[in-house]
Amino acid sequence: DSKLRLFSLNGNEPLAEEIAEKIGIELGQCEVKRFSDEEISISIEESVRGCDCFIVQSTSQPANEHLMELLIMIDALKRASAANINVVMPYYGYARQDRKSKSREPITAKLVANLMEKAGADRVIVLDLHAPQIQGFFDVPIDHLMSVNLLSDYFIDNMDLNFDEVVVVSPDHGGVTRARKMADRLKTPIAIIDKRRPKPNVSEVMNIVGEIEGRTAIIIDDIIDTGGTIKQAAQALLDKGAKEVYACCTHPVLSGPAIERLEESVIKEVVVTNSIQLGAEKKIDKIKELSIAGLLSEAIIRVYEEESVSTLFD
Amino acid sequence: DSKLRLFSLNGNEPLAEEIAEKIGIELGQCEVKRFSDEEISISIEESVRGCDCFIVQSTSQPANEHLMELLIMIDALKRASAANINVVMPYYGYARQDRKSKSREPITAKLVANLMEKAGADRVIVLDLHAPQIQGFFDVPIDHLMSVNLLSDYFIDNMDLNFDEVVVVSPDHGGVTRARKMADRLKTPIAIIDKRRPKPNVSEVMNIVGEIEGRTAIIIDDIIDTGGTIKQAAQALLDKGAKEVYACCTHPVLSGPAIERLEESVIKEVVVTNSIQLGAEKKIDKIKELSIAGLLSEAIIRVYEEESVSTLFD
Ligand SMILES: Nc1ncnc2c1ncn2[C@@H]1O[C@H](COP(=O)(O)O)[C@@H](O)[C@H]1O
Ligand SMILES: Nc1ncnc2c1ncn2[C@@H]1O[C@H](COP(=O)(O)O)[C@@H](O)[C@H]1O
Repeated sequence: DSKLRLFSLNGNEPLAEEIAEKIGIELGQCEVKRFSDEEISISIEESVRGCDCFIVQSTSQPANEHLMELLIMIDALKRASAANINVVMPYYGYARQDRKSKSREPITAKLVANLMEKAGADRVIVLDLHAPQIQGFFDVPIDHLMSVNLLSDYFIDNMDLNFDEVVVVSPDHGGVTRARKMADRLKTPIAIIDKRRPKPNVSEVMNIVGEIEGRTAIIIDDIIDTGGTIKQAAQALLDKGAKEVYACCTHPVLSGPAIERLEESVIKEVVVTNSIQLGAEKKIDKIKELSIAGLLSEAIIRVYEEESVSTLFD
Repeated sequence: DSKLRLFSLNGNEPLAEEIAEKIGIELGQCEVKRFSDEEISISIEESVRGCDCFIVQSTSQPANEHLMELLIMIDALKRASAANINVVMPYYGYARQDRKSKSREPITAKLVANLMEKAGADRVIVLDLHAPQIQGFFDVPIDHLMSVNLLSDYFIDNMDLNFDEVVVVSPDHGGVTRARKMADRLKTPIAIIDKRRPKPNVSEVMNIVGEIEGRTAIIIDDIIDTGGTIKQAAQALLDKGAKEVYACCTHPVLSGPAIERLEESVIKEVVVTNSIQLGAEKKIDKIKELSIAGLLSEAIIRVYEEESVSTLFD
């Protein structure tokens, strides 16, 4: 008689369904509705007393709505005497607001961590945080999963590439560790795009550090948002002699002009995960979605069985 | 050299402007914008170090967006070394979710209190809470203002009523205290609408406790939301012999079919406050808006000067 309960909110229900199926359970019964004035109404329709509860929620666009759903659900579970409340947050909204870049700015990524803990989260499972430092924003245990192996293996298994002629590219200095991990798995060198603005109000220069001449470039990033960075980076790589360019990322935020830009860009294929649910208008041929349900279901089972999650990365 | 700073978010800017004018200061400079993916971006454009900061924000529809704006602003002020952070929340969103009406429901009004405190609110000024018990959800000081005098005085000063022939009506048992206060000020009796459902799935019976025959009835409530209750109550009062019916409330939520229902209803005029900003489509002739800027500016000055707010009700 299992005491594992898995609930889905509105952030990414297809992913939650897939996770439930892999674990071999049904999704927990809960009603998430709106009152007439759009306030969120949540009611849990089955007992959770003494249960280990997992909530699957990506705080993707609209981030505020998804976050409030999550906080209210945590409150409801806590009051319903759940033994513990584990938040599975494949996409962590507001992660880019992780430091003050000017005076008198908020650090919303920390605020979000505080709000989840205050509401009653006992543990958080996340995927490819924009900055790994966000782990330190939490006082409760946090498991930080990575999709780099999933993305890498797609290129190994599904593409007819000669990896002696591939280079993994980080679009900025912040992403070098991620690019390094992918390059290790693919057994390729790396390159880094080094953007510099020579003077204020002079346009950026795209300098490339590393050998790309005649190579297939695979750009890896954590988030593709408006697509500007990746489109420019791909063009710069081709201009400087790369043979062809692929791109991949964990979180397809794809806001504003993103789809148009990806369509127009010189990128041959954009490989993403389903950490964020893509609307129909975003499911274009150029985008290949990989599922993280396997990784997340494995992590959930290990947390439930009180085993270590860290070996998931071997 | 005053250290009082008053900031407005997007909940009710016209009200904040009016409050600033009454206090005789300018609104604080802050930029509240959206990133491409709709995440909120806040930046405070002037020093608040050592200042007593007041944030005017009603968490009206869309409640989640307005609440997150508020929490992020509190975080930004705290990190900018404000001496203290006072939240002026004329309308408290989620106030109706103040208890579990079924098992396994959240108590979102308490969650909201916790979130504000966790973000860093030092004091909260509210107006006509749906339940006064919500004051107890806070550990920080809370000032609970009431608009009943403002509403009452409008009827005294602007309507040609013979108060010997007026009755103040509470639309339910929860609102009797409020109706009692208004009746005391108008020197009239009260009546209560006593809704009962004789059996499940049998329609409600509107019983009226108190004398209304031949009288002008003034219904008072805290919130008018979809307008169903007030429309029905007004009809019942006329049917049972009232001469004419007015209605008033503090918070014009007015969601869904509210405007249509008020237009159709037998109510002659609906008097509300500007605790919630009304969109143009809600500014109909039948609705009269009174300003609470005077009451709130007075409360802010008293808090700032460390005087008691309670005498505001005399
Ligand atoms: N949702 C968002 N969309 C775009 N930029 C953001 C967002 N949230 C934060 N930022 C900004 O992105 C920058 C951080 O990005 P990065 O340098 O890649 O870590 C900071 O200047 C933030 O103010
Ligand atoms: N935003 C809302 N719109 C309509 N009903 C609500 C809302 N929030 C809570 N409620 C419900 O309203 C009831 C409380 O109303 P009351 O009895 O007037 O205090 C509870 O059953 C709540 O579940």
